[in-house]
Amino acid sequence: MANVKHMKWWGWGVEGIAFTYDNKPAFAPFVKKAVGLELDGSAGSSVSFSDLTLPSSTIDQAFLAELGAIVGTDNAIVDDELRLVHTYGKSIRDLLRIRASDLPRMPDVVVYPADEAEVSAVVSAAVAANAVIIPFGGGSNISGSLEPHPGEARVVISLDLGRLNKVVSIDEGSGLARIQAGAQGPFIEEQLGARGWTMGHFPDSFTHSTLGGWVATRSSGMQSDKYGDIADIARGLRMVRPAGIVDIRPVPSASTGPSVREMILGSEGRLGVITEVTVQVHRTPEVREINGYLFPNWEAGIAAMHEISESDARPTVTRVSDARESGFSFATGKAKTGFDPQKVLMAYLKRRGWDLEGINLSFIGFEGSKSHVAYEKKIVARIVKKHGGLGVGKGPGVLYDQKKFDTPYLRDFLLDRGAAADVSETAAPWSRLNEIHDAVYAAANEAYEQIGTPGWIMSHLSHSYHSGACLYFTFAFVHGGDTAIAQYDVVKRAIQQAFVDHGGTISHHHGVGREHAPWLEQDISTEGVALMSGLFTAADPKKNFNPDKVITY
Amino acid sequence: MANVKHMKWWGWGVEGIAFTYDNKPAFAPFVKKAVGLELDGSAGSSVSFSDLTLPSSTIDQAFLAELGAIVGTDNAIVDDELRLVHTYGKSIRDLLRIRASDLPRMPDVVVYPADEAEVSAVVSAAVAANAVIIPFGGGSNISGSLEPHPGEARVVISLDLGRLNKVVSIDEGSGLARIQAGAQGPFIEEQLGARGWTMGHFPDSFTHSTLGGWVATRSSGMQSDKYGDIADIARGLRMVRPAGIVDIRPVPSASTGPSVREMILGSEGRLGVITEVTVQVHRTPEVREINGYLFPNWEAGIAAMHEISESDARPTVTRVSDARESGFSFATGKAKTGFDPQKVLMAYLKRRGWDLEGINLSFIGFEGSKSHVAYEKKIVARIVKKHGGLGVGKGPGVLYDQKKFDTPYLRDFLLDRGAAADVSETAAPWSRLNEIHDAVYAAANEAYEQIGTPGWIMSHLSHSYHSGACLYFTFAFVHGGDTAIAQYDVVKRAIQQAFVDHGGTISHHHGVGREHAPWLEQDISTEGVALMSGLFTAADPKKNFNPDKVITY
Repeated sequence: MANVKHMKWWGWGVEGIAFTYDNKPAFAPFVKKAVGLELDGSAGSSVSFSDLTLPSSTIDQAFLAELGAIVGTDNAIVDDELRLVHTYGKSIRDLLRIRASDLPRMPDVVVYPADEAEVSAVVSAAVAANAVIIPFGGGSNISGSLEPHPGEARVVISLDLGRLNKVVSIDEGSGLARIQAGAQGPFIEEQLGARGWTMGHFPDSFTHSTLGGWVATRSSGMQSDKYGDIADIARGLRMVRPAGIVDIRPVPSASTGPSVREMILGSEGRLGVITEVTVQVHRTPEVREINGYLFPNWEAGIAAMHEISESDARPTVTRVSDARESGFSFATGKAKTGFDPQKVLMAYLKRRGWDLEGINLSFIGFEGSKSHVAYEKKIVARIVKKHGGLGVGKGPGVLYDQKKFDTPYLRDFLLDRGAAADVSETAAPWSRLNEIHDAVYAAANEAYEQIGTPGWIMSHLSHSYHSGACLYFTFAFVHGGDTAIAQYDVVKRAIQQAFVDHGGTISHHHGVGREHAPWLEQDISTEGVALMSGLFTAADPKKNFNPDKVITY
Repeated sequence: MANVKHMKWWGWGVEGIAFTYDNKPAFAPFVKKAVGLELDGSAGSSVSFSDLTLPSSTIDQAFLAELGAIVGTDNAIVDDELRLVHTYGKSIRDLLRIRASDLPRMPDVVVYPADEAEVSAVVSAAVAANAVIIPFGGGSNISGSLEPHPGEARVVISLDLGRLNKVVSIDEGSGLARIQAGAQGPFIEEQLGARGWTMGHFPDSFTHSTLGGWVATRSSGMQSDKYGDIADIARGLRMVRPAGIVDIRPVPSASTGPSVREMILGSEGRLGVITEVTVQVHRTPEVREINGYLFPNWEAGIAAMHEISESDARPTVTRVSDARESGFSFATGKAKTGFDPQKVLMAYLKRRGWDLEGINLSFIGFEGSKSHVAYEKKIVARIVKKHGGLGVGKGPGVLYDQKKFDTPYLRDFLLDRGAAADVSETAAPWSRLNEIHDAVYAAANEAYEQIGTPGWIMSHLSHSYHSGACLYFTFAFVHGGDTAIAQYDVVKRAIQQAFVDHGGTISHHHGVGREHAPWLEQDISTEGVALMSGLFTAADPKKNFNPDKVITY
C-alpha cells in the first residue's frame, strides 16, 4: 500500500500521541465532580488487537485478482488490521464496538486506487460483480457512515482515496484550487500555503480528515463564519459513477435546475465516488488573530454573537462556551508558578460581582489586513461590552488555537478508564437557541437518570450565520461495560429528539450516516426524505454504493 | 378571480406604462447606428387580441366543476385572455410567438387557490385525473419554463399562486420571515419595510415576479453580492406534493444528506408546488448608497471588481458595463439645458487621454451604518484608482437606482418597430471572464453575419463572488418577420455555446426551462443530468408536474 497514513485502529489519531493530565492539577477533581470518575494515575485498560475476533474476508481470489490487476496487487489488501481500520469511523459507538470485538461485518478488501481512472475501473468491476463500494477518506466519521450493513452478503470493498492526495493546480487568477479528494487537511494547507493561499477549512478532524470526506458529509470548519461551510467552498466536483464521471464545473453560482453539486455534497458515498474537488482559496491574510472574551452568562454570550452576526463585522470564528464548558476549559489549564494572570482576572471579576462558576468563555477570530482587523475588533468590542462581556486578549486565543484539534484524544483517555464521551450538534434560528440549550440539558439529565449514572453535558456555540447558529454539545458518563452502547443510545436519542422538537436540525456538520438517520424524517419531513430516497434509488438501483446510510433499510 | 394582477398579455409590465424616447436626443441615432433601425417618431405596429387564433380549452365540465369546488368557481377560469397570459413567459421567443399567434397549446384552465390546503386539493385532483400542473408566479420567466408541451394531450392547469401573497410572520429575533410563494416583490418589501426589515432581493423582474418564482428558478438580485442569491436567502421551504407537504425547516445550515432544499431551488415546478418560503431578512440599513465609477477599459473594470471581491469591503452591488453598454446608457440620457456635468466630465477625461468611446460605466452599492459605508467606500476608492478608474459620485447611482427595473419595457418598444432583443447571462471564474466576453462577442457577430442582419451586443458584469462573476449580455437585431425566431435561435445558440465552450454556466439566474435545456449536458455533464433526471422521474413518474422543462423530452 503506497504510504497512506491511517489512524489507530482503536482510537483517535496516530500511535504515540495521547491525552495526559500531567501538570493539570484541576483536571482530576473536575472529572470526579462531573461524572464521578476517580483518576488515580493508573494507565487504564486499553484493548489489544489479539483479543479481537475478526470475521474473515469473503472475497474470492478471482475478484481480488481482478481488483489487484487494476490498482496493483499491493493496493488491494485483505490484511485484518487494515480491514478493521476501514470498518468503522470514530464515534463512541465505533470505539466501544471495537473494544467489545463487536464486528459482525468488516470490508472484505481495502483498495487504494492511484487516480480517477483506477477509481472508475474499480467501480466498473464492483458494479459488474454486484459488490458494495464504501468510499473511505480519513476514517474520522462519527455518524456511522462507513460501516458495512451487518447482513451484507455481497463482497464489500472499502475504497480508500488516500493516494489521490494532490493539489492538482491553482487558478491564481480566480482563487480556485483543484484538489484530489483523498488529500488530508494539513497536506492541503501545506501545499496551498507554500504558494500563499489558504482554503480556510478547519474542522475538528482537520489533522486526519480529507477533502472528499468533508464534501461527502457537508463539513464545517472553525473559520466557516468567514470562509463558508464546505458547501460554499466546494465549487467544482468530479464523481465517478458506473456510466461515467459527473463533472460539475467550478462556477461561482448557477441557475441550472436542482443543484447536482448540492446532491453530491452530503451524499456520503451513496451516489458515487468523489475524486476531485475545485475549492475556493484565499490569499493568506496579513493578520490572523483569535481573541478571548468572557460573558457573565450564556444568554449574554448568545445575544452578543447574534448582534455580531448582524453587524458590519465579519469575524472568522465566533465561539462561546456555556458555563460548564468554560469550567471544563479552565480545568484543563496547566499549573502556573509565580504570577497567574487567570487568578488576578478572577479576583477582579469577583470584585465586579460576577458569578465565577457562571463565566462563559468566548473566542472570536479576525483575519484580513492589519487595519481591517483593527476595524472589526473595535465593532466587536463595542458589542461585547454592550452585553456585559469583557475582552481578555490574545493569550487565551493562542492557547485555543494550539489545542483546537486535540480534544478527540481525551475521549480515548476516558474510554480507557471506563467513561464514554461523544458529541452532538444542531443548527437553529437565533430565537430558538436558548430554548434548545435548556431542552437538551433537561433531556440529557433525564437520560442520565434513566440509565442511573451521573452524566456530564456541556455546550458551545460554534458557528454563526445571519439567521441562526450551531450549538455543539459534548456529553460523557461512566458507562456500565456491556451496557455501554445501550446507555449511550438513551442519552444520544434524548439529545437528538430535543433538537428536532425545538426547531433544530439533527446535524449541522457531522452528516447523517446511520447515527442520525432515525430523525431524518422529523427534520426534513417524510416527503423530503421521499424525494431524497427517490434520488438514491434512481442513481443506485442495485444498492452498490454505500447503501444503508443517510436513509437506512 | 380575487384581484390577482398580471402583466400585459402582449408584453412587459402593466397597461399604460411604456418606454419613450421623448427628450432623449441621443437615442434614435444610437439605435440607427447599432442595429440600422430608423426611428421616425411613429408608434410602430403592435398586436391586437382579435387578430389571434387561440386553441379552445379542452377541460371537460366535470373536471372544471371539481376544481371550482376546491377554489371556488370564480377562481377556476377558462377565459381566453387569462389563458393566454398564462401560456408563456416574457422571453423574446414568447413575445414573437404571441404576435405571430403561434399558440399550439395553451393551459386549459387557470386556477387560483386561496391557500396551501387548496393547493393540496388541486394537486390531488389533478394527479387523480392525470392532468398537468404548471405553477405560475408573476409570469416574467424568459427561459420557457411556463409553456405546456405542444403535444400535451392531457388537461393542462396553470396554477396561479397569486392569492398566496402574505407575509405570514416575522421572527424578529432571528431575521427570518415566513412569506407565501405568490407574493410579488414590491408587496414583500412594502410589508417587510413597514416593520423595519428588507429581504434585499431585487432581480430585474422585481416589480412583477414572485418569491415562489425566484426560488423555482434560483434567482439572483441586484444586491445579491451582500444579501446572497435566493438560494442563500431561502432557508425554509414548503412544497405540495401528491403524498403530502415537503417541509424544510429554516435552519441556517445543515448536514442532512443531499440537500432537499437545494433540490427544490431551481426545480421549476417539476417536483411540486412551492407554497411558502422562510427567508432571511435584514434590518433596513442606516445608509444605502450607489455610486458611479468610470473605467478606461473593460479589463480594468473587471480587474477592479475582482480585487474588490477579494478585499475587506463587501458592497451590495458591483456592476461594470462594457464600452458598448456604457454607450447605450449615455444614449438613453435626457437632454440637458444649461450646465451639463456629463459634458464637463467628458472634456476632462479627454484631456486626460481617455478614449471616450471606450469608457466603462460602473456602479457599486454600499449599505450599513454611516461609518461602515464610509469605510468600505474608502477601500473601494483605493482599488478603483489603482485600476485607473474614476469615482463620479452618487448622481449616476441615483439615476441607475430609479431606472433599474425599466429596461424590459424597451424591448416591447423595439418589437413594435421590428427589432428583437433579449438577454443571456453566465457565471464563470474570474480568470475566464475576458475570454468569455471576447468569445461571446465573436460568436454573436458571426451569428449576425450568418443571418445577414447588423446586430448589437453589449454586456455588463452584474454579480461578483469570491471566485468568479456573472456576465450579462443583451443583444438585439432588426428581425425578418416570419424568420424572426429562426434568426433569434442562431444568435442565442451562438452565445450559449460560447458560454459552455469557455468555462461558463448556461444560466446564472434565469433558470433552464426549455430555452437553456439543450446545453445542460455540456454544462453539468451527461452524468450530472442523469442524476437530476433520476430525481425527476422518481418524484413524478407520470409527468404531472410541469414536464418537459429543465430536462426536455
